[in-house]
Amino acid sequence: MTSETGNENAPAAGETGSTSGLSRRGLLGLAGAAVGAGVVGVGAGIAVDRTVLGASTDSSATYPFYGEHQAGITTPAQDRLHFATFDVVDGLDRAGLVELLQDWTTAGARMTQGRPAGKYGPASGPVDAPPDDTGEALDLPAGGLTLTFGFGPTLFETADGHDRFGIASRRPAALVDLPHFPGDALQDALVGGDLCVQACSDDPQVAVHAIRNLSRIAFGRATIRWSQLGFGRTSSTSRSQTTPRNLFGFKDGTANIKSEDTAVVADQVWAGSGGDDQWMRGGSYLVARKIRMVIETWDRQQLGEQERIIGRDKGEGAPLSGGTEFSEPNFIALSPTGGTKIDPDSHVRLAHPKTNNGAQLLRRGYNFVDGNDELGRLNAGLFFIAFQSDPRKQFIPIQMQLAKNDAMNEYVKHVGSGIFAVPPGARSGSYVGATLFA
Amino acid sequence: MTSETGNENAPAAGETGSTSGLSRRGLLGLAGAAVGAGVVGVGAGIAVDRTVLGASTDSSATYPFYGEHQAGITTPAQDRLHFATFDVVDGLDRAGLVELLQDWTTAGARMTQGRPAGKYGPASGPVDAPPDDTGEALDLPAGGLTLTFGFGPTLFETADGHDRFGIASRRPAALVDLPHFPGDALQDALVGGDLCVQACSDDPQVAVHAIRNLSRIAFGRATIRWSQLGFGRTSSTSRSQTTPRNLFGFKDGTANIKSEDTAVVADQVWAGSGGDDQWMRGGSYLVARKIRMVIETWDRQQLGEQERIIGRDKGEGAPLSGGTEFSEPNFIALSPTGGTKIDPDSHVRLAHPKTNNGAQLLRRGYNFVDGNDELGRLNAGLFFIAFQSDPRKQFIPIQMQLAKNDAMNEYVKHVGSGIFAVPPGARSGSYVGATLFA
Repeated sequence: MTSETGNENAPAAGETGSTSGLSRRGLLGLAGAAVGAGVVGVGAGIAVDRTVLGASTDSSATYPFYGEHQAGITTPAQDRLHFATFDVVDGLDRAGLVELLQDWTTAGARMTQGRPAGKYGPASGPVDAPPDDTGEALDLPAGGLTLTFGFGPTLFETADGHDRFGIASRRPAALVDLPHFPGDALQDALVGGDLCVQACSDDPQVAVHAIRNLSRIAFGRATIRWSQLGFGRTSSTSRSQTTPRNLFGFKDGTANIKSEDTAVVADQVWAGSGGDDQWMRGGSYLVARKIRMVIETWDRQQLGEQERIIGRDKGEGAPLSGGTEFSEPNFIALSPTGGTKIDPDSHVRLAHPKTNNGAQLLRRGYNFVDGNDELGRLNAGLFFIAFQSDPRKQFIPIQMQLAKNDAMNEYVKHVGSGIFAVPPGARSGSYVGATLFA
Repeated sequence: MTSETGNENAPAAGETGSTSGLSRRGLLGLAGAAVGAGVVGVGAGIAVDRTVLGASTDSSATYPFYGEHQAGITTPAQDRLHFATFDVVDGLDRAGLVELLQDWTTAGARMTQGRPAGKYGPASGPVDAPPDDTGEALDLPAGGLTLTFGFGPTLFETADGHDRFGIASRRPAALVDLPHFPGDALQDALVGGDLCVQACSDDPQVAVHAIRNLSRIAFGRATIRWSQLGFGRTSSTSRSQTTPRNLFGFKDGTANIKSEDTAVVADQVWAGSGGDDQWMRGGSYLVARKIRMVIETWDRQQLGEQERIIGRDKGEGAPLSGGTEFSEPNFIALSPTGGTKIDPDSHVRLAHPKTNNGAQLLRRGYNFVDGNDELGRLNAGLFFIAFQSDPRKQFIPIQMQLAKNDAMNEYVKHVGSGIFAVPPGARSGSYVGATLFA
């Protein structure tokens, strides 16, 4: 590491197209130890054929940073999240913003391949200067780290009539301000942001290291507005993954869009066909919602009522209309005790594409626990993240229906929110967001 | 799982002495998939011969719950932490407290073996009753889960002259109230507690599940006072483990007590030889400190200054007097540029046993990031946990010296604190803390 990072021109395995990066010293020192299942990158940041075994995943996995799409969308969901939104400081101009995105791109391309954020590694370079990397990931493999960058609506807004970055006219119509949903209990400190970065890795220390170093690189240009750590991915994004459970104890994401469903992904995930958002072609729209769960109340609810609310059984995750986890729910099948087997207000029915004009979301959320509140209740819930080609047709109508009718609403409270245009992936030699400023 | 948990009398692998529990349905469903390195339990909760590969560890590991010592002290430090302190509610009497400890013991013995918290699993039992387990760990292996219970000073205090639990006379002299240390910036909401539970696992979802279910079991009897999640263990407690890094980017815990050093462990970790604390024989004293790091300031410090403050080089972790990571520091070796090679105010010198009358600590801390503050700085640091036979001779004098002189003080702030008497392990059929109430 020390010698490698002291020589910027040394080839780095991860940047030559190899997808099994073992560049960090610590892992090399463990040569001979068993390393888990391999990962095969299939261009465009989509990796398949990856075995996920419970919480234990392949810590040596790396995903290409450059490509048609940004990684971290259809990439098989890693186990841990550090998500942060940033506000650009007053006074930074278009050139300054572009430079920040270029610097983030350079550092992101390095860190996702298991390398330090900058030329002078945490323990190399001159002793009379701060290192370019903070060091806590020095001995750690990349753990499948992906970094996904997005632009919030405020980045396109004019301030006092001034078009800060000269991009006001390029705001896509799909990048709407989210409406107020019934029951919203949003906290100002957990809403919005000019920029967002989603860092996912199988090792939380690697994800934290990435956000910390990107924040450090942004010093004087952008500051963190709000941020969230998450664990226990609550969705599968690949058929190679098992379905995880959220903090209600139920399987979550059974019917999620999977990266293998290429036609659905093309239709429902990738943006840029709206006419006004050509620069977004190959990108996607990210909606984040911090959803606090009232888990103490939920935990006192009887098993049958929990299952009625979800519309699935708790053990297997099968729809209450019968079958197994991946059986299609039957919303008209009648119960011998009256009514339908699946309650009309159940979460599974209200969120289902059949009830939403075929709209689907690629969900990529995480569980969170932020300590406890003053009453001794765990401050816990779901940090919801979803990608889509047009939030006006997907997240917004789906969430509006859920907010009005979902039987689950008694047990959840939306406290944070953000929407971001996630541009396409950068070509090697370019930077994330280049199409916006072209 | 469903059938197993529906029959309380069915044998459970983990409780018959096996140390490789695969009892949860999800893992069984993955039979044939590669499972990592094995674990060999060597009685008394000490396991050796465990391969730790970066952040990826053996998710199928289980440790015995019952034994001479509680697990989670000399157990090789797992990767994730959920720590919580509890206050006993007003009005609970001695019998009620004993019943709570018995209930916690029963649930703890189950969960550490990868089983649900109670008889009716999250998806079994009657539909018209809440399950005995919340369910989010249903498909997950135990991930080496250990649960370690402790008693705070306030548990022994009389309230309005009333000896709540009839144990005021049994408070050991070693369970002192921690003194004020120079620079302490403790927040009331992060101090103390009648009881504590340290949950460690390689899977955060498993650790969170355990604290949540213990909290649920305590409903009406004890409530969480404060709690903390941690990742990236910052100490090794076994020679089989590599030395991890804290958020200063330095290796941490190189000179920690290792479970293999049986004579040191007997002398410095296990309590009960004080004359007044016979009931603590085989137990230990836990000190927890939430230490916020001012990482943005640290990150702007030059490499040479960071190394001077720590007293070790950043890459290898070797003492500045020379050698490799595990070389003994030489505090009198002179630098050609004047003074000693290791600064007298460096952290390594002030914390070293040579500077502290031979006193050592078994450290078992974790990194934490709790989002960010209103200035956009990460709310991050080290959640310090240490075990010892007598805090009056170990933590307190060591910390007093550090608090007065440590060059690192400019970059740290102690915001949370607790001290707890951790009783010996329970014998099978008994409960944690039985010796106190005998």
